[in-house]
Amino acid sequence: MVDSTRDRRLTYESAGVSIDAQDRALVEVRRLAKTTFTTGVLSEIGSFGGLFTLEPDNPSGTVLVASADGVGTKLKVAQTAARHGTVGEDLVNHCVNDILVLGARPLFFLDYFASGRLEPGVAVAVIEGLTRGCRANGCALLGGETAEMPGFYQPGEYDLAGFIVGSCVRDRLLRVETVRTGDALVALPSTGLHTNGYSLARKVLIELLGLKVTDEVPALGRSVADALLAVHRSYLPALGPLLDAGFVKSAAHITGGGIPDNLPRALPSGVGAEIDLGSWDEPALFRLIREAGRVPEDDMRRTFNLGVGMILVVAEASVPEVLEGVSQHPGGWLIGRTVAGKGVRFVGERRA
Amino acid sequence: MVDSTRDRRLTYESAGVSIDAQDRALVEVRRLAKTTFTTGVLSEIGSFGGLFTLEPDNPSGTVLVASADGVGTKLKVAQTAARHGTVGEDLVNHCVNDILVLGARPLFFLDYFASGRLEPGVAVAVIEGLTRGCRANGCALLGGETAEMPGFYQPGEYDLAGFIVGSCVRDRLLRVETVRTGDALVALPSTGLHTNGYSLARKVLIELLGLKVTDEVPALGRSVADALLAVHRSYLPALGPLLDAGFVKSAAHITGGGIPDNLPRALPSGVGAEIDLGSWDEPALFRLIREAGRVPEDDMRRTFNLGVGMILVVAEASVPEVLEGVSQHPGGWLIGRTVAGKGVRFVGERRA
Repeated sequence: MVDSTRDRRLTYESAGVSIDAQDRALVEVRRLAKTTFTTGVLSEIGSFGGLFTLEPDNPSGTVLVASADGVGTKLKVAQTAARHGTVGEDLVNHCVNDILVLGARPLFFLDYFASGRLEPGVAVAVIEGLTRGCRANGCALLGGETAEMPGFYQPGEYDLAGFIVGSCVRDRLLRVETVRTGDALVALPSTGLHTNGYSLARKVLIELLGLKVTDEVPALGRSVADALLAVHRSYLPALGPLLDAGFVKSAAHITGGGIPDNLPRALPSGVGAEIDLGSWDEPALFRLIREAGRVPEDDMRRTFNLGVGMILVVAEASVPEVLEGVSQHPGGWLIGRTVAGKGVRFVGERRA
Repeated sequence: MVDSTRDRRLTYESAGVSIDAQDRALVEVRRLAKTTFTTGVLSEIGSFGGLFTLEPDNPSGTVLVASADGVGTKLKVAQTAARHGTVGEDLVNHCVNDILVLGARPLFFLDYFASGRLEPGVAVAVIEGLTRGCRANGCALLGGETAEMPGFYQPGEYDLAGFIVGSCVRDRLLRVETVRTGDALVALPSTGLHTNGYSLARKVLIELLGLKVTDEVPALGRSVADALLAVHRSYLPALGPLLDAGFVKSAAHITGGGIPDNLPRALPSGVGAEIDLGSWDEPALFRLIREAGRVPEDDMRRTFNLGVGMILVVAEASVPEVLEGVSQHPGGWLIGRTVAGKGVRFVGERRA
């Protein structure tokens, strides 16, 4: 189908990120990865984290949960604004959240920092952010690689990736199989874009609206840099006690692909989700991007977290305790429930 | 001191890699990393790998050994030659070697692959190399991140980093404290540049000599691409049985910084090393780079492995068994011994 209005709008694809090409490659990557699996591997690649056990025969043994991630083009905002102190925290928190949704707590982290020519001040600022994030999450920065690659990166630019290992007792891992239709979905608010959708956000705000990162945006009540560099929060303080108490059945970290692509990863086959668009006020930043870029709603939903950084799947009866538990961290709300079927259906009206 | 001849020669620094700036930043990074250390951490950052235990009070418990690494500008050669199938193997083997010198065997690996726009064929070729390396080392590819970062990487370019976790029983970890003066140093041959010195090698071969990657080089008996893309070997098959037999006291993976920077990491305080330059025939590739680039000897030694990919520290009495053990993998030689003092002293004459 040709949508004649679509080419005048901004989509994630037109901003340069090809989700379909990624998906095709991922299928082949999964097949290849399986050829390497040893007896310790408990998961397939493509979950939020990979699972490995040193005790394959012990149902109560310790399971290692590992995940790798980058910061994406949020780095470009940090580099343009010359504010390098928080991208490390973004990365650590992102990684912590990815293993947290499997029930694991962080043990240690390693980073990869690459630039064309090392600027020690920049590198140290980035690592300082990493260590701040690590300390806050009780996670040791165990090592890393600082690569200087002349001619590979533009002056002033760098890439940053991270790798986390956490652990969980095997029979305490969150399992999507425990989810039933009629379970409640509790949303935890994001602090901004987190680390996803920056190519499209920059295209709209910087290229289309012609804003500079230092410009104050009345609709946001702050500068472009302040809005875009808001730190990806760690859900460990909110979720940790709920995991200890056994209140959480499953959880989804809402990253690239948004709610439609990430929530189903927390649901078993035959179970879908209904999300009530009227259950929360979407933060102003998303509205600004949608309207200024005339971004189609489906692209908004698959690109951005829209104010929802994590969704917990809990039994209906646990909702009061869960909402009370997160109320100081800094709260959450009932965003929908699980239903028979597959995928995510959005119902209700988005609050303006 | 101003060395008037130096500016006409090619050094690693003039090729764009500033070892000193890296060293200064590393000191601060180490200080920052220490602020994150939890009770599980057994090592300081900066060793070949980081050590973490889930059982801090158990001297015979399992220790996790982790390391992060990149491929460096060897990637540029692969990209210029459009040969993407082996850089993944380089990376896995590099990581395996980094934990092997602490006595650990690989458990699992995660990768970070970043490009401006994902070319699925290229990505799959790279991952295929990773999985080949993983299978050969009995290491599971447990996950990874494929990042598409528009505007960050040039068309056709990508960066690749890897993270490995291995394990070792705590009282079987190699410890530099067991090394004494008069111990023997056994060298294991490299297969080429491995993954270090590519900025300088490219500067000499491509820029200075004007060679194309497809050019055949008579002195090397093969093309530039074949010579530069030779796969970084894994020392697991050679070293594994020697570790099992308890023949190895300590070991150094000869990477960036060469023998002078890496061998001392395998020696305790007060112990230095004497390396006999006459004990091996330096591969032709290094001679070509030295002569064509008029590269000062100190830069050659601190940039390249010069044919020595790993050095084992073993008791004098174990030398025959060690040489016999590596003889099929594909051999090794007595390259020197430990002496009182510090650092590395080169003696004898390099064989032409």
